[in-house]
Amino acid sequence: MATFFTAFFSSQLGGVVTDPALMVLPFDDHMVHRGHGIFDTAGLVNGRIYDLEAHLDRFLGSAERSRLALYGSRERMRDIIIRTTTMSGLRDGSIRYWLTSGAGSLDLTPAPDAEPGFFVMIFGGLSYPDRWYTQGLRMMTTTYPIKPALYAITKATNYLPNVLMQMEAKAAGFDNGIFIDEFGFVGESSNMNVAFVTADGVLRHPKFERVLPGCTVLRVLDLAKSLVGKGLITGVEVCDIPVADARAAREMLLIGSSVKVAPIVEWDRQPIGTGTPGPACAALRALLEEDMRSGDRLIDVPSA
Amino acid sequence: MATFFTAFFSSQLGGVVTDPALMVLPFDDHMVHRGHGIFDTAGLVNGRIYDLEAHLDRFLGSAERSRLALYGSRERMRDIIIRTTTMSGLRDGSIRYWLTSGAGSLDLTPAPDAEPGFFVMIFGGLSYPDRWYTQGLRMMTTTYPIKPALYAITKATNYLPNVLMQMEAKAAGFDNGIFIDEFGFVGESSNMNVAFVTADGVLRHPKFERVLPGCTVLRVLDLAKSLVGKGLITGVEVCDIPVADARAAREMLLIGSSVKVAPIVEWDRQPIGTGTPGPACAALRALLEEDMRSGDRLIDVPSA
Repeated sequence: MATFFTAFFSSQLGGVVTDPALMVLPFDDHMVHRGHGIFDTAGLVNGRIYDLEAHLDRFLGSAERSRLALYGSRERMRDIIIRTTTMSGLRDGSIRYWLTSGAGSLDLTPAPDAEPGFFVMIFGGLSYPDRWYTQGLRMMTTTYPIKPALYAITKATNYLPNVLMQMEAKAAGFDNGIFIDEFGFVGESSNMNVAFVTADGVLRHPKFERVLPGCTVLRVLDLAKSLVGKGLITGVEVCDIPVADARAAREMLLIGSSVKVAPIVEWDRQPIGTGTPGPACAALRALLEEDMRSGDRLIDVPSA
Repeated sequence: MATFFTAFFSSQLGGVVTDPALMVLPFDDHMVHRGHGIFDTAGLVNGRIYDLEAHLDRFLGSAERSRLALYGSRERMRDIIIRTTTMSGLRDGSIRYWLTSGAGSLDLTPAPDAEPGFFVMIFGGLSYPDRWYTQGLRMMTTTYPIKPALYAITKATNYLPNVLMQMEAKAAGFDNGIFIDEFGFVGESSNMNVAFVTADGVLRHPKFERVLPGCTVLRVLDLAKSLVGKGLITGVEVCDIPVADARAAREMLLIGSSVKVAPIVEWDRQPIGTGTPGPACAALRALLEEDMRSGDRLIDVPSA
């Protein structure tokens, strides 16, 4: 299914438009020509926004590390996000928002009189093949270098390395790539996190110092605690993961807000565990889906 | 002087506009939200374009490393750049052009049916304080990490590190910052190269493996050969430059297409050489300015 855009708020326009032909921005906005902008994405599930506060926390952290002024307060931005979602009429899809250093010049640093730019897009159509869940994913170690830690933990629009790793993987017949850091530890995938279930049942995730702290994986690691001691996992651990340890895992997981929790069954043409989707992956996906449908992190979107 | 935009070509519009209000692009262009775009800048000097072929060589190199399809041929893009310059009516200023992976989705990789985006902006108003040349610049070593080599040599719009280093320097009362690489060698400035004249007169520049190969500095290093043996410089060398060696230089230079060749007189509050603008800097700037006015790398812009 192709992407479709239902509503767009622009601080430049000062309001919301629903005609995709009007979803434009000034070329001199510094996010366009310098990548001086950040973003985040929250899911829209059955008419409710999932885990928006966690995404706003990260958004504000990215803004601070990128030396960006806010567009008013956190409350103002949250309000605009919710209102734009209402105007979209969409009940299931994605809510993405960006903060930029604004327009006014083609210089490197913001124009002296620049106002921060704030944009919100409500869109649908993002989906993954059923095969990803029924048969599992095939990954490759990317040849592209991982970003330095400070840039990796900041969700700025500087995603060229992420784009290139996914293009490289697709061109080579894989579903996606995996960054390995300069110390030989597992990093992350193109725009999703990776986790492992060790041979003795520990759910392991790389430290969040050199990879983006995914809101979804943080939530999954928290939800996973309820599974400990019930047969599928024996513990939850965030630590450096050497590649050799990772390859010896029983299960390997790809985790993100849109992919949720998907099984990785092959890495660099070698099977992970039995080479088939595992039970911990299915259980964690079920926990997350339950939380997205009826947990305590949902915000109702008022009707128009 | 504030930036002003005189003409803008957009592959999305299919032509040139001169009203700045129309200089927009679709939000879903992947350069906007993923940084999947590259750029380059050529100078417009007295109605002629300086060194365009060298800039196009680099542009095509950046495109290849970024897995971007061209917008037609090199000749087509060159032709559009020249025609847009004609329509601008400007005789002195900057010509910047971008290639993107196009619009059609908010995904990471290009939309299946995406057409490459190509944009050209002709603008004026970029200038530096006289003080930079008469008194010299004051720099600081940035606390921001340098990009991995592959990304540093690719002129993509992923300029957050470059933006942050300049903002950091300005906030601390300096004119600009300098990246040092993980081996302790001198890298580059925010969007300009740095070079040195050693105590024994050798013009030294860092290797181009981990910094952007600036078209201007490459030309300056070539022009500089004509000065060797005439008293100001004794040789030209491209090599790794440890920070301690760099600090012991007689002169330090900031080099780029818009700044040309400017003297750096202080680095981390320590004087370079005598702490005043040096003679090699002035001589190299004069050589470059002569080449920009009347050398063999100029293209006439046809009148409208």
